[in-house]
Amino acid sequence: MTAAVRSGSDYVQAGNEVDVVLAAYRSRLPVMLTGPTGCGKTRLVEHLGAQLGLPVVTISCHDDLTSADLVGRFTVSGGDVAWHDGPLTRAVKTGAICYLDEVVEARHDSLAVLHALTDHRRTLYLDRSDEVVTAPDSFMLISSYNPAYRSTLKDLKPSFRQRFVTVPLTYLPPDRERDVIIAEAGVAAGVAERLVSCATAIRGADKAFHLEPPSTRVLVAAARLTAAGVDEFTAVESCVLAPLSSDGAISDGLRAVASAVFP
Amino acid sequence: MTAAVRSGSDYVQAGNEVDVVLAAYRSRLPVMLTGPTGCGKTRLVEHLGAQLGLPVVTISCHDDLTSADLVGRFTVSGGDVAWHDGPLTRAVKTGAICYLDEVVEARHDSLAVLHALTDHRRTLYLDRSDEVVTAPDSFMLISSYNPAYRSTLKDLKPSFRQRFVTVPLTYLPPDRERDVIIAEAGVAAGVAERLVSCATAIRGADKAFHLEPPSTRVLVAAARLTAAGVDEFTAVESCVLAPLSSDGAISDGLRAVASAVFP
Amino acid sequence: MTAAVRSGSDYVQAGNEVDVVLAAYRSRLPVMLTGPTGCGKTRLVEHLGAQLGLPVVTISCHDDLTSADLVGRFTVSGGDVAWHDGPLTRAVKTGAICYLDEVVEARHDSLAVLHALTDHRRTLYLDRSDEVVTAPDSFMLISSYNPAYRSTLKDLKPSFRQRFVTVPLTYLPPDRERDVIIAEAGVAAGVAERLVSCATAIRGADKAFHLEPPSTRVLVAAARLTAAGVDEFTAVESCVLAPLSSDGAISDGLRAVASAVFP
Amino acid sequence: MTAAVRSGSDYVQAGNEVDVVLAAYRSRLPVMLTGPTGCGKTRLVEHLGAQLGLPVVTISCHDDLTSADLVGRFTVSGGDVAWHDGPLTRAVKTGAICYLDEVVEARHDSLAVLHALTDHRRTLYLDRSDEVVTAPDSFMLISSYNPAYRSTLKDLKPSFRQRFVTVPLTYLPPDRERDVIIAEAGVAAGVAERLVSCATAIRGADKAFHLEPPSTRVLVAAARLTAAGVDEFTAVESCVLAPLSSDGAISDGLRAVASAVFP
Amino acid sequence: MTAAVRSGSDYVQAGNEVDVVLAAYRSRLPVMLTGPTGCGKTRLVEHLGAQLGLPVVTISCHDDLTSADLVGRFTVSGGDVAWHDGPLTRAVKTGAICYLDEVVEARHDSLAVLHALTDHRRTLYLDRSDEVVTAPDSFMLISSYNPAYRSTLKDLKPSFRQRFVTVPLTYLPPDRERDVIIAEAGVAAGVAERLVSCATAIRGADKAFHLEPPSTRVLVAAARLTAAGVDEFTAVESCVLAPLSSDGAISDGLRAVASAVFP
Amino acid sequence: MTAAVRSGSDYVQAGNEVDVVLAAYRSRLPVMLTGPTGCGKTRLVEHLGAQLGLPVVTISCHDDLTSADLVGRFTVSGGDVAWHDGPLTRAVKTGAICYLDEVVEARHDSLAVLHALTDHRRTLYLDRSDEVVTAPDSFMLISSYNPAYRSTLKDLKPSFRQRFVTVPLTYLPPDRERDVIIAEAGVAAGVAERLVSCATAIRGADKAFHLEPPSTRVLVAAARLTAAGVDEFTAVESCVLAPLSSDGAISDGLRAVASAVFP
Repeated sequence: MTAAVRSGSDYVQAGNEVDVVLAAYRSRLPVMLTGPTGCGKTRLVEHLGAQLGLPVVTISCHDDLTSADLVGRFTVSGGDVAWHDGPLTRAVKTGAICYLDEVVEARHDSLAVLHALTDHRRTLYLDRSDEVVTAPDSFMLISSYNPAYRSTLKDLKPSFRQRFVTVPLTYLPPDRERDVIIAEAGVAAGVAERLVSCATAIRGADKAFHLEPPSTRVLVAAARLTAAGVDEFTAVESCVLAPLSSDGAISDGLRAVASAVFP
Repeated sequence: MTAAVRSGSDYVQAGNEVDVVLAAYRSRLPVMLTGPTGCGKTRLVEHLGAQLGLPVVTISCHDDLTSADLVGRFTVSGGDVAWHDGPLTRAVKTGAICYLDEVVEARHDSLAVLHALTDHRRTLYLDRSDEVVTAPDSFMLISSYNPAYRSTLKDLKPSFRQRFVTVPLTYLPPDRERDVIIAEAGVAAGVAERLVSCATAIRGADKAFHLEPPSTRVLVAAARLTAAGVDEFTAVESCVLAPLSSDGAISDGLRAVASAVFP
Repeated sequence: MTAAVRSGSDYVQAGNEVDVVLAAYRSRLPVMLTGPTGCGKTRLVEHLGAQLGLPVVTISCHDDLTSADLVGRFTVSGGDVAWHDGPLTRAVKTGAICYLDEVVEARHDSLAVLHALTDHRRTLYLDRSDEVVTAPDSFMLISSYNPAYRSTLKDLKPSFRQRFVTVPLTYLPPDRERDVIIAEAGVAAGVAERLVSCATAIRGADKAFHLEPPSTRVLVAAARLTAAGVDEFTAVESCVLAPLSSDGAISDGLRAVASAVFP
Repeated sequence: MTAAVRSGSDYVQAGNEVDVVLAAYRSRLPVMLTGPTGCGKTRLVEHLGAQLGLPVVTISCHDDLTSADLVGRFTVSGGDVAWHDGPLTRAVKTGAICYLDEVVEARHDSLAVLHALTDHRRTLYLDRSDEVVTAPDSFMLISSYNPAYRSTLKDLKPSFRQRFVTVPLTYLPPDRERDVIIAEAGVAAGVAERLVSCATAIRGADKAFHLEPPSTRVLVAAARLTAAGVDEFTAVESCVLAPLSSDGAISDGLRAVASAVFP
Repeated sequence: MTAAVRSGSDYVQAGNEVDVVLAAYRSRLPVMLTGPTGCGKTRLVEHLGAQLGLPVVTISCHDDLTSADLVGRFTVSGGDVAWHDGPLTRAVKTGAICYLDEVVEARHDSLAVLHALTDHRRTLYLDRSDEVVTAPDSFMLISSYNPAYRSTLKDLKPSFRQRFVTVPLTYLPPDRERDVIIAEAGVAAGVAERLVSCATAIRGADKAFHLEPPSTRVLVAAARLTAAGVDEFTAVESCVLAPLSSDGAISDGLRAVASAVFP
Repeated sequence: MTAAVRSGSDYVQAGNEVDVVLAAYRSRLPVMLTGPTGCGKTRLVEHLGAQLGLPVVTISCHDDLTSADLVGRFTVSGGDVAWHDGPLTRAVKTGAICYLDEVVEARHDSLAVLHALTDHRRTLYLDRSDEVVTAPDSFMLISSYNPAYRSTLKDLKPSFRQRFVTVPLTYLPPDRERDVIIAEAGVAAGVAERLVSCATAIRGADKAFHLEPPSTRVLVAAARLTAAGVDEFTAVESCVLAPLSSDGAISDGLRAVASAVFP
């Protein structure tokens, strides 16, 4: 049991993304974070909460999320019916940061309640409880979105995207990624460097493989397995290569890329 | 925290749209506002409410909106069942303006309750509560609709569209749009002019890019980011360019257009 | 606030449709009204109710209408369950005219309860409340249907259509339509004549445009806007042309047709 | 108000169908009636009930019919839950004739409860109320089915059809059909003969038109309209031709056929 | 009313199927019976129950069968909520034979509860009532499945099929089938032989007709109709030919085959 | 009744899979087991529970599994509403091993609750009960997944797969598989060897047959049938060949392969 949970304030900035998000906060504008899996979107939000001293209310979006799950519903207690605020309403009322993770997964109808909250009104209309809640200045809405998954069947509407300040995130530069791996998994610099080299090679071959490239998160996982006694190549296979593809030919190609790094 | 919320009465008329809507109000005819995202449909409705001294009941339409969400439902309280008016019924009974935002998103079956309300009957039949409500003279129904989103799968039926006086909105002329940006974001005239120039260039190249063109709303957002300390080009990228497309080639084209304005 | 609500007895017969419907009533046969949007189907039913001294129960059909919405359901009150008749059952029990507006919109399963009501049995089987209701002689069922909307996906089954006396409605002859416009909107004869000319031209070009042609209802709306101070061409654009199409080329063609009438 | 409701015992046998159905009854086998719309399937069942002195429980099948609608469900009364038999269960327990009208419309899953009732077990398994009901000898299950509607999407499974004695019905011979029209509508023999001639001509041209051919029921309706004062050609148009098709070319062809009979 | 219900112990073995099922019982392995409609799957299960002195719990599978219908659900009684075992749970707890008839019809998700019951665990996990039930030795699960209905849309998953000992059933040899018909319907040997000849001819022509071939069950039904006074050819038409097809050409072909047997 | 239930600790390691899973446990990382049907995924999890002295909470995933089935729901008791933890929540709170069997079958939206549980947060957000549960160190999440079933319609998202250490399982080497069969079914070595030979031959011909290859589980079942008195070839047909295919040509090919082993 060696790996420590990295605290939220450890976020390492790759470009000027924190500056833009803070400016959006001061301008009371909602933000859309975009970028590949595991590049640090959740960590950036945690970092922001710590910086601003605000609680973060996280909502993982999915197909089954109704607008009632966001704003609240009537529940029965002792025979009577009482309104129960949902996480979005609680975030608005308390002036917290509300984080809608993978917003493209949500049903578009559930997102309609966000319209009045993301324009000049900054207001939540709770039709069912007949209530109108205006957000305090500290309230901020952040959504995340991975454009690599967009399809004609399920993409965000242009009018929805225009409601947000868009802040694209990307992978860390190699030396910063190495430092994160060392800090997170407690491994030697050589191990971290070999993992970053392997990831960089696969990311570069991305267009040949048509894969979702490996994230910093899977490199940290491989490093932690190594620290727990697994040999480096098995750790890379389990955490980096195997999750990418179960197709024989592609797996062989990936293994060849990795073998060049871990001879 | 600099940007002030613009009050509803600030609406700037681009053509004669306010005059036609007021004539429809005097003729007790429902109105359908059409036009691109962020061109001011919601603001026009707020302006009208302020002008006429009437409350505005806003309903954001979506796939999951049932007719019960519009007209009301039975709820249980203390063991008994009581009827609870929905927002449409409340608007009819109180003679308010009822605004159905993005009506094309609603399920067609939910819209059937509007039939008797939008012809000479001006009446709401509440089958479930066995009630018939005739609208007072001050009641007005306004819907909005963005024709750019119409598809063969989900478009308004011709018979539904013929029930409304159709009032198309469009972008403001450049000088008026500049004034709105200055008033909303408190930026210098030069910043506002560059933003309008950039938007005009993209709107002109619209057919080449097949994009939903940038609205006045995103220009105001970019101006506010600038006022909060972000450089102009980053603000335009975050608020205007990035929300338009995440396709590499198109993004490059957009950036080239913007670079000509912000050298 | 000038336009008076035209009373139901104002229906102007275009052919022998009222005679056939009255004969069907005397023969206790159900009637299916067919014809384009806004040609007066609802008005004919209101006229019939006034003529026969019978109440009219109107049900707007839609995809979400269950058979329970038609015949009734059990509801809970004070802890117990009580049966509550639906509008169709109320119409049958009181011997009223029941009007199923746009019956093709209803789910076919909801229409199964009509089978025994539309043949020699004239009977409603309420399986859930275990009740059998035979219609009194004064009960009449009228459905309406716009064949222009039929598709292979959603059309009435032949066996269902054979259960009704079919009465097709069409547009009024020009002089009668002009009289209706004058009576409804209080405009001068010249305005009404120009509106009818414009509508006739568009209806004639119908096959070129592939549009749902403009109804008498939209002409009355345009006339009322004119009476409220809007110029004739803007009124025609808002009420007649814009609802027909938002396609650029078609809109230009329609405007050319209208310009010939309103020079 | 002239037409009398024909009593159920008036069924006119076209072939030996009543004999076969009675033999199936004596052999305690279920029966499937097949044939076109309005050829008398319902009347045959009513006739059988009158002959055997048994009540008829009619269930109109549709997509929304659940197995609970057939066998029963738990309902709440006074706070407690009580089982309430459905129409099929009531028919089994009382030894009645249960008539499943248009059984192909039902969801196949709803029909699974019929399996043990239609083989040597003649038993209804009520899983939810944990009850097993064996049918008394007088119980008979009759289904009806119009093969003209069969499609690959929605047809009865072969294994289901093999559970029934199949009895095909067809149109009456011309002279018997004429007699039925005279008896039902009280018209002169000449009117009835012209209606039968017209129907025979259209039925013969069936393959050219690809229509569901006109039934005896629509001829009776046309005769009744005539008796109520409508001229013969209008009555034929309203009751026979118009329900068959709203396609212009086909309607013209049908009118030509009819004109040859009603010159 | 002549036909006696054949008792469950009358099952006539065509091969060694009873021996294999009994060995599976002794080995506590679940069994999958496969074969065409009406070949005796249900009878074999009844026979097994009689042989082993165990009750049989029959569940007819269908699209609408939820896992709650199998394992049980919470129901409300006197204001409180109580768990109510479903038929599968009752069969497991009492060590009965549970027979899932036409298991391919069930939704795959409903079948997930069977996983732990059909491997070495022989255990039912009731997540909702938080209970774990291990089957006693006498419990046996039998499913049935007609491979003729398999399709790419709805077939059993290979991993599911590998959980069962598969026992294929087929038609009886002609002389045994004749004996069953005589015993079931009380007809003379000549009638039974002609019916078996007719069925054998159609089964042989199966590939030409692409039909589900006639089962022993329909031959017994035809024999019983004959015993009830219907002539042999009509009985064969009603019970054997008509259920097979309503296509004109195929029906003519089938009638030709039958005519050779019943001249 | 001869076969003993093999205890969970009997798992025979084919490679280094147990070592990797234990390292993942020490690193507090979730594990995804992949491999064909019946290769021992469930047994490995049971083995791990026994090794670590932790209870195993098994959840069989399916299309109908809601997130409420995983995390819990409000239930009514005595008129009031109380929260009831689901199996996932119980596993997190007690620090157990939670095993999601066939996770690809679950609806993706149900899996969204796992996001915060499978990254550095190791936290369950219970939005509905407004509770946040952080997993103790002993908690481990294991999912299983058979890549042979992946399709474009229903596959795990790359971002989801990257959250797990992936551990592929495969068939045992022949001699170890033989030992397992002897231990599980108590048969002679010769029987076990012939069964393994037969399985190896079919697995080798896998690409020709396009089948899910036979698992160790079906070999054990065949051996147990043999022990219960069924001849070897019938046992192989019932347990190994018949579940693989009901296609005539493929079945013949499989029988030819088996005949070479059991002459």
